[in-house]
Order: sequence, then structure tokens, then C-alpha cells
Amino acid sequence: MKSFSVKELLTTTPLLQEVVINGWVKTFRSNRFIALNDGSTLNNIQCVVDFEKFDENLLKQIATGAAIKVKGTLVESQGKGQNVEIQVDDITIHGSADPETYPIQPKKHSLEFLREKAHLRVRTNTFAAVMRVRSALSFAIHQYFQQNGFYYFHAPIITGSDAEGAGEMFRVTTLDEKNPPLTEAGDVDHKEDFFGKETNLTVSGQLEAEAYAMALGKVYTFGPTFRAENSNTSRHLAEFWMIEPEMAFYDLDANMDLAEDFIKKVIQYILDNCKEDLQFLEKRLLDEEKTKPQAERSEMALLEKLKFVVENNFKRVTYTEAIDILRNSKPNKKKKFKYPINEWGADLQSEHERFLVEKHFKCPVILFDYPAKIKAFYMRLNEDGKTVRAMDILFPGIGEIVGGSQREERLDVLKEKMAALGIDEEELWWYLDLRKFGTAVHSGFGLGFERLVLFATGMGNIRDVIPFPRTPQNAEF
Amino acid sequence: MKSFSVKELLTTTPLLQEVVINGWVKTFRSNRFIALNDGSTLNNIQCVVDFEKFDENLLKQIATGAAIKVKGTLVESQGKGQNVEIQVDDITIHGSADPETYPIQPKKHSLEFLREKAHLRVRTNTFAAVMRVRSALSFAIHQYFQQNGFYYFHAPIITGSDAEGAGEMFRVTTLDEKNPPLTEAGDVDHKEDFFGKETNLTVSGQLEAEAYAMALGKVYTFGPTFRAENSNTSRHLAEFWMIEPEMAFYDLDANMDLAEDFIKKVIQYILDNCKEDLQFLEKRLLDEEKTKPQAERSEMALLEKLKFVVENNFKRVTYTEAIDILRNSKPNKKKKFKYPINEWGADLQSEHERFLVEKHFKCPVILFDYPAKIKAFYMRLNEDGKTVRAMDILFPGIGEIVGGSQREERLDVLKEKMAALGIDEEELWWYLDLRKFGTAVHSGFGLGFERLVLFATGMGNIRDVIPFPRTPQNAEF
Repeated sequence: MKSFSVKELLTTTPLLQEVVINGWVKTFRSNRFIALNDGSTLNNIQCVVDFEKFDENLLKQIATGAAIKVKGTLVESQGKGQNVEIQVDDITIHGSADPETYPIQPKKHSLEFLREKAHLRVRTNTFAAVMRVRSALSFAIHQYFQQNGFYYFHAPIITGSDAEGAGEMFRVTTLDEKNPPLTEAGDVDHKEDFFGKETNLTVSGQLEAEAYAMALGKVYTFGPTFRAENSNTSRHLAEFWMIEPEMAFYDLDANMDLAEDFIKKVIQYILDNCKEDLQFLEKRLLDEEKTKPQAERSEMALLEKLKFVVENNFKRVTYTEAIDILRNSKPNKKKKFKYPINEWGADLQSEHERFLVEKHFKCPVILFDYPAKIKAFYMRLNEDGKTVRAMDILFPGIGEIVGGSQREERLDVLKEKMAALGIDEEELWWYLDLRKFGTAVHSGFGLGFERLVLFATGMGNIRDVIPFPRTPQNAEF
Repeated sequence: MKSFSVKELLTTTPLLQEVVINGWVKTFRSNRFIALNDGSTLNNIQCVVDFEKFDENLLKQIATGAAIKVKGTLVESQGKGQNVEIQVDDITIHGSADPETYPIQPKKHSLEFLREKAHLRVRTNTFAAVMRVRSALSFAIHQYFQQNGFYYFHAPIITGSDAEGAGEMFRVTTLDEKNPPLTEAGDVDHKEDFFGKETNLTVSGQLEAEAYAMALGKVYTFGPTFRAENSNTSRHLAEFWMIEPEMAFYDLDANMDLAEDFIKKVIQYILDNCKEDLQFLEKRLLDEEKTKPQAERSEMALLEKLKFVVENNFKRVTYTEAIDILRNSKPNKKKKFKYPINEWGADLQSEHERFLVEKHFKCPVILFDYPAKIKAFYMRLNEDGKTVRAMDILFPGIGEIVGGSQREERLDVLKEKMAALGIDEEELWWYLDLRKFGTAVHSGFGLGFERLVLFATGMGNIRDVIPFPRTPQNAEF
């Protein structure tokens, strides 16, 4: 007898077939109706039990969380809420779940409570839906790039270079921490360390991806990156996944076109493939927001918001235009910004980005041509000598979701910028080589995957869209 | 005028079109024929230059490695070796490559030499082909699992647990290495470390994947894993990528069926999608092996070997049967094994695995039901009380490519095994929870991605199938 997944039973299995199904009990009503789920889909299959045929001790073990195997016949359902159900002939208990101690009982749990139970929280509808959407988004990303002529490139995780300066790094070592070997000068001697030098966890695969783009043309990374920053916010993780495409012969315009098309296509993919999960998450968000004052509620429901992104052009605005808008904005004049905008050159804070996206333009915004001084050394200097070909994509409710740039391909300009910032040429000899030999216009961007999942699922805390979050003081599981 | 990739020009672009193409010069013959490549495919497009029309200084810059932009007309080729070529109207130099200093000249370079130039080696045909196949294999893996109802699960990279014991670990820390905070007992005080405890880089995502399988049914990881082992061999990396599917309600037989089908399908994918690269790599291997004595050469050419794997059943053999075969084998009797096989219970060494796969069965072999004593604590104990439901897949030339098992789902048996091995229950409280609440038969395996790429590409050293290898004393780039 063939074993089916719940998803198959609900969608593709002919009626009146004898079926076997394994899953976990969601609920057991009236000693008669088992709602069974195996994770393959949000929906449960109803299993109808004639309790007089079964041993009482067996029925007692059918409680929320128990794993069971059911044999029976798939029939049209008489009840409301489902098209098909199983008339049960036989039940085997794989493993019970004591209602007194099993924490995931069928009632509302706070997200904070569930964070402490990260190994079990994925058994709730909310987290299962989030993680299925996360998986679908991951695949959509690979599919998009592969169909568009990109090659997947695995950037190194352990790096001997700390030149990018994107953030604080974690040290990776095998030295005896209590009695490390010392140099004559009394410093810890990393020549004796595993890699013969000091090594850290990567903050970005971009520089290495550039090396690969300058040979394979178009590449992308999709891997973990790290920040050792003591940021306890709902938008920061110490370990997160990042997607970094890098393209030879792309200027900033082509880069912006790609980023916008990419985001639209991967969101379209989940609209096409995760409808039930997204509908569930939309309802969850509506319920959550009912407890909030009107002003804090979302203007659009989740699906409407996702469709809006897919169907509308992102607004492209230079930094200089954005500063003008902000300088003349109501909150700036009324001194409502914590960081007032007075002069060109100011770094934009989250409050400014939110104003632009949520109040002024009311759509995703691509800001570009930022002042060189507030951006990284590798971004291409414009002819004005003071701005660089950088772009950030800002999303409602999320803030920066993409940061990218056209890269400085001119050896002399790059060297000048590195010298001005005190970045050692020796350390980045290989990165400079890319400008010595066959250099060309090229561009790329980075997208924080968890921020995309946050946006796509309507969840409010980044800790709730990654299976086992790593944050300051927390590396459980 | 539309810009094309070389791949598009060679396969889908109509003749007599005006085209623009960017790429790097592979060779420039007779001041007339530029072989141009942009990484999109192994093959070059021939660009035919009427040198009298072009400035001499421009022509001088067209040397191997230079990045150029070509405008011209796509026409049927008059010469041999290609169907189409470009009649060039205009050339722009993006960036030159001085033949005196550019290391990737059109001649044979040793793989060792190229390893020192890992940022440039992907500009050679060999490494570009390997990396394109690597990318295609990665995608095939995602596609296989997604099409078969698995969800992609991102296992944590930084882990607070060191219980699995799969190997030596790298410590991850932000403590001041020279003056770390100490406890009263004089030990380094990890309460003051970033995560408030000692943390390491993961050696496997399996235990966490089990938690997800026990909710979503079927999941897989595909991420970096780490071993801080001082192994300087052609098969070991300190940082490598691993695929770990984990399935609820799968016993060992279903696990073996999945692993075999999975490997066959992803190899079929590259046979279908990477033909030119594989043909090139086949030829490379044949050339390389010409320098070797006959006995060390491969019995099959690369494509034949890949097809053999796809078309033939893997041989399934119990450990006990394998020991019988080995005990009675010629090399054992003639004392040719470094580790002679005398008794049941011996751990199999590489020489034994190679004998079974390459000499005895001459096909991929799945060994299963190993002695409990030589396998990990989480593997399910058989009724005999001395073997566990483990399986390893052994490949010719590679050795172990997959290691998996049915997991011990019985709480009492698992606790006994942990106690016997001194594994702290407190540390794995959450893993035990999976057996307390809704436990069920489940299985999974791990596949070392670089070993699969080694096999698929016919390369001989694992350092040559990952972009920037990390090995003892080496974390360059």
C-alpha cells in the first residue's frame, strides 16, 4: 500500500483508494476526528475514527503532537472545511506526546515563548508556514539566477582578510585559549594557528565574487555571513544568509534593473507556489495588528503588499534628490527627526529611509549616487569626484534590503581610495590584480535573505524567520 | 544594439545581426582572429578583424586576458572549428593585460601553480569548466529536493554544542585573545564571550535537521561545514559544503533508495546540461593520465563513468558480508593491506573500501549495518544489539561519498548510548525532546559536496573543485 504525504492526499490522490499516511496529530476531537499533519502543507487531513473499533489505551495516546500511522480509505468528506477525509481502518502509534509536558499545545503561544523552544516551534502553523516560504524563496533565488546565465559561487566562510570593513568580525582559531603561543613581542602568535595566520568569519563574499565574475561573467553567492555586533534589534542577526550577485560588464543602471527584476520574480514565485501559507500568514498578521493602535497597523494586507511590489516600478532617486525631499519635509521642519537633515553628505538613518519609503513615495525606493565619504572604498567614483555609484533598495517596514554598487574598476583610482582609508595594498594584492589584468566595468549587490523573508512573511522579528537564530548572548541548539 | 553572451551568440542568435559582445581575449592570432570568451560557456566566439582598419596601438592591447568590447556582424564562419563568427566593426578596450606580468598565458600551467593564483585560475578552461559544473550540480541538488517534497533548511553555522563528535572544531570568539577574562578558577570565562558561552563552527547540521524533519517531514541542508583536522590530503578540506537530507518516517531501506536515486538524478542533470564542459574535462583527464603508468589510469573515461553510475544499481552489502569478502581476499591473504582484516568489528580503511569498490564489485557500493562501536551514538541499534542501521556509499576513486543512518528514535535506547559514551544529556536536552514528543522512525544522510564535484569532474585534488580552498596553513584570499 502506497504511503502518501498530506499534500498529495489533498490534491492528487483519487478517491476510494486504500492509503497509508504518517504524521503528527494536530487535534483529536470527540474521540472521532483526528486532524493529521506531516509538514508537507499547511492543511491537515481529517481522519475519521470509529472509536468503538479501537482499544481505549490506543485512543488515549492520540493527543496533540503524537506521531501516528493511519491506514484507511480516502473518501469525499461529509463535513465542512475539507473536500476529502480518511475513513480509518488501522492506527499505529509511533510516539506519543504527553499533554502534561508537551509545550506545543493547541492554543496561542507568544513568539517569545516559542523562541525558547526553537526545536519545537516549527511544529506550529506559523513557523511551519514561515519556513516553507523561506525554502521556496531560496529555491526561487537559485532558479532565477540559473535561468539568467549566472553561476553559483561558494565564497569562503573563513577568511584571512579583514579589509572590507563591513563590520566587526568573529575570530576563528584553534589555539589554546588559556595559554596561546606568543611572539617575541608578546602578541598572540597566529603563525601557530590552524591557518598560519589570524582568520575571521566572512562579512561578505563580494570581493571574492568579483574575482569569479571577472572570469565567469555573472555569478552569485548564497551563503552565511556574520557580524559580531552587539545589536539587539528585531532586524539584526550575528549569523545570517546573504545573496550577492556580481556581474562583469554591468553598470549601475543594469545593476538596478537586475535587482528590481530579481526581487519581483522571487516574490512572484512564492505568490504562485505558497498561496496557502501566505494566506495563513496574512491572517496571522491581521490578528496580531488588531491589538495595535490604528496608526501602527499595515496599510496593506500581506498578499496585497507582495503584489504591489511585483506590479509597480521601484522609484529611483538620487541621494541628492532624497536629501532635498528630506530637508523640506514636515518632520524635518517640525524637528521630529532624531537626526535632523541639514546638509548634503549626511548619512541616512532608518527614520529617514522610512519617511521616504512609507510616507513620501509609498513604494520601494532605489537611492543611488551616494556621497563617497559614507560608502565603501570599492564603489566607483563618479565624474563629480564626490559621489559614488552606490545604490540601496529600501522597502516599507524593512528599510534597506539591498545594498550594491558599480565597482571601481580603475586601478589608480582604487589605489588612491585605499590609501586615503589606510587599507593595505599587500592585504588585497589579489583584488588589485583584477584591475591590473583585463579589468572592466562591473557591478553587484547584496541582499540580506532574512530581511526578504521578513518582508515576504509579514513577521516582525528577524529571529522568527531563521530556524536557529544567533544573536548576542544566544547560540542555543 | 543588444549585448549578447557568447553562449547566446553560439546557440540562439540569428545570422547577419549587428551584435555587441564583451569578453576576455583568449588568443589573438595573425593580427586577425580574436578568440573571445565571457565565461558563459567553454567555447569562444571568433572575432575577425580587418587589421588595416584599426589603430596599431589598439591592436597591441588585444592580448590574452584583455577585456574588450566588440561590435560587428554575426556571420557564418568560413573557417574550421566554428559555425559562426563576428565580422568586427569596432573594438573598445576595457582593460589590457600585460603579457610580461599576466600569469595566465595560453600555455599549460600546473594545477599547483594555479592554486597559488586562485583569484585568476578560474580564467583557465579547466577551472571555468569545473566551476560551471559545480554550479550546475548545486542547482540540480536544490531542484531534486524541491521537486520531491523536501524543504530547504538552513542549519546554524555557529554552534554552542559540541556533542556530535564528528571531528575537531574551530572556536569562534570575540574575546580579547591576549587578555581574556578569567573565571575564579582561572579558566577563560566564556560567559563574557559574544554568545555568553563557548561556541564553535558546526561539523554537521544533522541534529538540527532532525528537529525540522520531525515537523516539516522532509528537509535538507546545503551549507558549509568545518573540520579543524590537520589532514593535508587530496580528499580533505577544513571548510567544505555538505548536503544533509533528513526524513521523518523513512527507514534505512528508504534512506538508501533516496540516496541512490538522488545521486543518479543530479549526475544525469549535468550529463544533460554540461556536456561541453564534461567533454573538455574528460579530455583533460585523458591527457593527464597519459603521463601515468597504465595501472594507475582510469578504467573508464569520464562520461562513461558518469553514465555507468546513472545506469547501474549500486551494490548493497552488509558490513558483515564485506568483512567476509575482505578477509578472504587476495590482498588480505597476501598481506598487502596495511591494516589486515582479521576480525568482525574492524573499522574499514580507505584501502578496504577501494578494494571492494574498484576491484571486487566494480561499481558504487552501499555498505550497511555496521558495528555499533565504530559508529555515532545517534544511529539506530539493530535487534542483534551489536550493529546499527548505518550506511555508507563508496565510490570508485573517491571512497566514502555518503554517510547516513536510520536515527535512534527510542528515548531509552538513545539515553543508554549517550550515557555509555559520556555524552551529557543536559547539552542535548532539545535533541532528547524530539524523542519525548511525537517520536518516529526517521533517517538521513550527509553527502560531501566537493567529493561529488571531484567525482563528476574527474579532478584529482579536492583543492581544485572549490573556489578558495581552506586547508591547514592556508586561508589565502
